Amino acid sequence: MVDARVLMGKPVARALNDATFERSHEYEQINKRKPCLAVITVDDPASRSYLKTIKSTARKTGCEVQEISLKPTADIPGMRQIINPLNDDPGIDGILVQMPLPKGINLHDAGLAINSNKDVDGISPYQAGLLFKSAKNALIPPTARAVMEILDFYQIGLSGQEVIIVGRSLVVGKPLGLLMVGRNATLTWCHSRTRSLPMVCKRADVLVGALGKARFLDSNYLRPGATVVDVGINVDEDGKLAGDVDVQNIQSIVAAYTPVPGGVGPVTSACLYANLLDAANAALIPIS
Amino acid sequence: MVDARVLMGKPVARALNDATFERSHEYEQINKRKPCLAVITVDDPASRSYLKTIKSTARKTGCEVQEISLKPTADIPGMRQIINPLNDDPGIDGILVQMPLPKGINLHDAGLAINSNKDVDGISPYQAGLLFKSAKNALIPPTARAVMEILDFYQIGLSGQEVIIVGRSLVVGKPLGLLMVGRNATLTWCHSRTRSLPMVCKRADVLVGALGKARFLDSNYLRPGATVVDVGINVDEDGKLAGDVDVQNIQSIVAAYTPVPGGVGPVTSACLYANLLDAANAALIPIS
Repeated sequence: MVDARVLMGKPVARALNDATFERSHEYEQINKRKPCLAVITVDDPASRSYLKTIKSTARKTGCEVQEISLKPTADIPGMRQIINPLNDDPGIDGILVQMPLPKGINLHDAGLAINSNKDVDGISPYQAGLLFKSAKNALIPPTARAVMEILDFYQIGLSGQEVIIVGRSLVVGKPLGLLMVGRNATLTWCHSRTRSLPMVCKRADVLVGALGKARFLDSNYLRPGATVVDVGINVDEDGKLAGDVDVQNIQSIVAAYTPVPGGVGPVTSACLYANLLDAANAALIPIS
Repeated sequence: MVDARVLMGKPVARALNDATFERSHEYEQINKRKPCLAVITVDDPASRSYLKTIKSTARKTGCEVQEISLKPTADIPGMRQIINPLNDDPGIDGILVQMPLPKGINLHDAGLAINSNKDVDGISPYQAGLLFKSAKNALIPPTARAVMEILDFYQIGLSGQEVIIVGRSLVVGKPLGLLMVGRNATLTWCHSRTRSLPMVCKRADVLVGALGKARFLDSNYLRPGATVVDVGINVDEDGKLAGDVDVQNIQSIVAAYTPVPGGVGPVTSACLYANLLDAANAALIPIS
């Protein structure tokens, strides 16, 4: 069998960032300021690393980042005190609340606190509802959007295909499932309670791993010729970065796969800024 | 093989209506008025028939109905003029915009016009987003809720089961898919673009027909022992009412099925009033 195609994220991210740069240049000409993303962050090694990526992508896309720190001891009213002025600030186009959150605050709480029109991470009920309704102006969680951008970039068809998503998280599995159905895929959601998971996964024309278990999906889960998208970012017992897919094991079977690192990851922050421009340019929709 | 179990809707509706009656009695004692549903309706034979059911269920559940007519020529601003006072009226707990809508207004427009806290039909982006997030206080579209109530009433397990939904509408297929995943089913959405639909449907432990084609799903689509839920209400070429399932054809194969009429239908209006009480009693959630 011919070697599998490696679906690299970099060219996808570059194309997206270039398009966003054009849009933010245009935005700046009209509004006399750059599009601005507010990032609310609890100081933490993982969030520091993502924040670095966010800042570097801001430079590539002609956007600005305003960093606001949140105490690790903050409660919901404390978070709202930080977010409310940003919700009302006409100089802020998007608000991102970084994971991990303080104890006692979950993603849903954060989603309820953010002005939906600035919810570039797609965590508010209003934006989730727009996605549910396949509204064109929905702000889609960046990781889910990244998967679609990669598949489109490499012209991997979805209509009529069997797509299996392993994982049902609010930021990846669930939104991605709705996007896949919107693109006419026959969509199956699998998860920890799925019986005969290998058998179910073997039905996939496109298999998406979004379960968060290092190298879990191997050749037992894949039929020859499938395309695999790996959303997992895990640290294995040896401290090494690993996706949800066991690449060594599946390389000779599949038609194409996204590597970890270098696959979905780089495209995610590009999608965050694509969302920022969508939010900045959106005609405000009445929310009721 | 033993005859299939017929999952009648009436006992499910009765149990739900009795519970709602208790709740509305309690509500009336506290608030000195009955819970009130506003129904906005374009005069039409189909909506007249459903309106009759809505009014009769109001009596059974101790609720009130206020009927407001909408001109068949109304546009979006015209609809908003009708809805806005109801949105603000503290004497109205729920608002239902009946199908069919005037030309030029779609379900999404109606969903954007309604105060989300009164959206007992679950058509607003905010309520769809709560459902997406599996929030306990989500107001679920009554037909989708009805399917779950029937399965629960007849103690048909969902965790780890393969559930196949044929149809991906905003009021049935899509919300039902999210509910099924929330209940740990392995969920597959099928639709007009699905290849080998019979083969895919034969995987189902529970098959839900929500495609709107009279007697479309027959023994070619079902494996022995499956449970079938029929959401279709169609009129066949002889003018007869028919579900999406060919009951004559599948009766000897399946373990259980819901009839049409008498299955999902009667439970739907019961769920509408269960939603009305949920809305009436809900602590108002800040919407942002």
